[in-house]
Amino acid sequence: MLETITSPTLLIDEKICRRNISRMAEKAAKHGMELIPHMKTAQSHIVGEWSREVGIREITVSSLKMASYFSNKGWSTIHIAFPFNPREINAFNELASQQKLSIQLVNPVVTQLVAEKLTSAAGFFIEIDAGYGRTGVPYQQTAIIDEILAAAEKNPLFSFRGFYIHPGHSYYTKDIVGIYEESRLALAELKALYIAKYPTIKTRIGDTPGCSVMDDFGDIDQLGPGNFMFYDVTQVGIGSCSLADIAVALAVPIVDIQVEKGEILVHGGGVHLSKDVLYEPDGSKNYGEVVYLREGAAWEIPKQRSYVKSVSQEHGIIKASDELLQQVSVGDLIGILPIHSCMTADCMKSYYTINGLHIDHAEGAS
Amino acid sequence: MLETITSPTLLIDEKICRRNISRMAEKAAKHGMELIPHMKTAQSHIVGEWSREVGIREITVSSLKMASYFSNKGWSTIHIAFPFNPREINAFNELASQQKLSIQLVNPVVTQLVAEKLTSAAGFFIEIDAGYGRTGVPYQQTAIIDEILAAAEKNPLFSFRGFYIHPGHSYYTKDIVGIYEESRLALAELKALYIAKYPTIKTRIGDTPGCSVMDDFGDIDQLGPGNFMFYDVTQVGIGSCSLADIAVALAVPIVDIQVEKGEILVHGGGVHLSKDVLYEPDGSKNYGEVVYLREGAAWEIPKQRSYVKSVSQEHGIIKASDELLQQVSVGDLIGILPIHSCMTADCMKSYYTINGLHIDHAEGAS
Repeated sequence: MLETITSPTLLIDEKICRRNISRMAEKAAKHGMELIPHMKTAQSHIVGEWSREVGIREITVSSLKMASYFSNKGWSTIHIAFPFNPREINAFNELASQQKLSIQLVNPVVTQLVAEKLTSAAGFFIEIDAGYGRTGVPYQQTAIIDEILAAAEKNPLFSFRGFYIHPGHSYYTKDIVGIYEESRLALAELKALYIAKYPTIKTRIGDTPGCSVMDDFGDIDQLGPGNFMFYDVTQVGIGSCSLADIAVALAVPIVDIQVEKGEILVHGGGVHLSKDVLYEPDGSKNYGEVVYLREGAAWEIPKQRSYVKSVSQEHGIIKASDELLQQVSVGDLIGILPIHSCMTADCMKSYYTINGLHIDHAEGAS
Repeated sequence: MLETITSPTLLIDEKICRRNISRMAEKAAKHGMELIPHMKTAQSHIVGEWSREVGIREITVSSLKMASYFSNKGWSTIHIAFPFNPREINAFNELASQQKLSIQLVNPVVTQLVAEKLTSAAGFFIEIDAGYGRTGVPYQQTAIIDEILAAAEKNPLFSFRGFYIHPGHSYYTKDIVGIYEESRLALAELKALYIAKYPTIKTRIGDTPGCSVMDDFGDIDQLGPGNFMFYDVTQVGIGSCSLADIAVALAVPIVDIQVEKGEILVHGGGVHLSKDVLYEPDGSKNYGEVVYLREGAAWEIPKQRSYVKSVSQEHGIIKASDELLQQVSVGDLIGILPIHSCMTADCMKSYYTINGLHIDHAEGAS
């Protein structure tokens, strides 16, 4: 199918993606935990089906629009893992009348508003901050948790499902084990405090680095990672996976080759890959790693590395190895493994398998 | 119309946008130059109409898909300012049979291929590199230019229109005047060399910082900037414009306020703003500047600055001034002036005027 590709196209290797999903599901099962994957990375019904085939029944999304995209497809519950946006209460009520949903709460103000206006049954998790600092109730502040619970209780349609932590600082540390222990302790402490009054509550943790690297999750009940379905070059750097585990690659046409400069110009820039960037040891930028595309077969990781050293809106410039310069001509396609697959998938909004099958992606679901 | 906004929405201030277009058109006219604006920023038929109203007849785009979006709307020529991608020759031929197009060439290999396969009349510019280093024929290498021209001449449908420079290094310098002089000299030298044989050729230059800051363009014939229609915080930093000239703002709902931390959490992240970033003097990141939104009126630039200090996929965290913290509540909307408006517009793919009118944006035109 490669000969039919004329412009930047996001390829998905179904085998790699299914393997990533199976591995995480097996890891969860091994520890008696439930995997409730975050679909913000794939944003695809078909990838959702691949998850269902290994027993996944509940999913996570990051916006009401994304929940709407996934609703009425047989998911037992869709959890919207973003602090509830009170401006969306009417649209939420409408969707919650058709599909079982749960939301995330971080403050009593919003809780009160939802409790006042909620007209369909819905669950909620309280998001806890155990050290990341992005969002959530600091785990020691049980007074705020109590206020949230008191506000929620005023509406019998509203049910407390548990505590959620996204320890996003695991992306920026070498101490994933330490971050996990911090999160685990916070969740264990909170569950112990509230389980008597709310016997069905669960604890859930949601980052790909932790879920990939850790093997023992202690007493946490549920895992909610998303990026692991595709992985990316950032996750390789963290140690969550290897390059061979990355399930998506952007196919880009070569439009110019500058042999003396060791550079290749491709049609594929910031609007395709996103502007997410890593830094090489010498301080230069890396917007994605080059792979060779093979007709009807998996892409191939080169022996000599080449990578995207700069992007503008539609341009990408590859710092090319001698090997790459010898192998390619103007008009050829090469593949780029993304730095951050969630962003690249959201930019591209469509996938093709390496056998040419179209795979859906939600339109404007953010 | 603000009360109808429930999720991240890109607002456009028509008055500011029209003023930016008029100013640039007047500047071009004053010097007897032609303005051929780049539509990669706005990607909108309606903004195209606003340009037509001040006399614009020819436009620039950055991809064949974008050319297709703008075709058959009465543009005298649409120039695709990206090194021609030979995999698109069939689609190009089809579009060129309906709409007058010109393309950009940087090497003889692609020129030869196009000359062999071109079936409809089309123009071409040779892209010149006068120092930016991204793409284009280094201006001293007239042997390559001669090869391109010789290859193109084999097809009488193919006509040479001139030389194009995008001096993108003007984004990273304080010496815009120096860069302009470098580009102007290169273009003047090349025009002098080739005008006898090609008497209708023109020279065109295409960056917003230069076109905004410079007043005297010397003997350059045409201006081709794009970002100037919207401008953005990056352009303010360069000195191309003031904050009051930025024509788009992302409306985002406030979902949490942390008064003690001086932080506000909004629904609006990397998938809305893009990951383009500037650095504050203290080294912290800035993903966009906060403005106050006013019902049915222009947004208002706060006296005390607040800005987006971090983004993830859907989250934005505002470093909030005391003034901002006093003015807003959870559930309110605030506006974010983008760091890079081209990327934000491409992420959002739709605009609303401050009076609630929908303004189109091309879908997946990159």
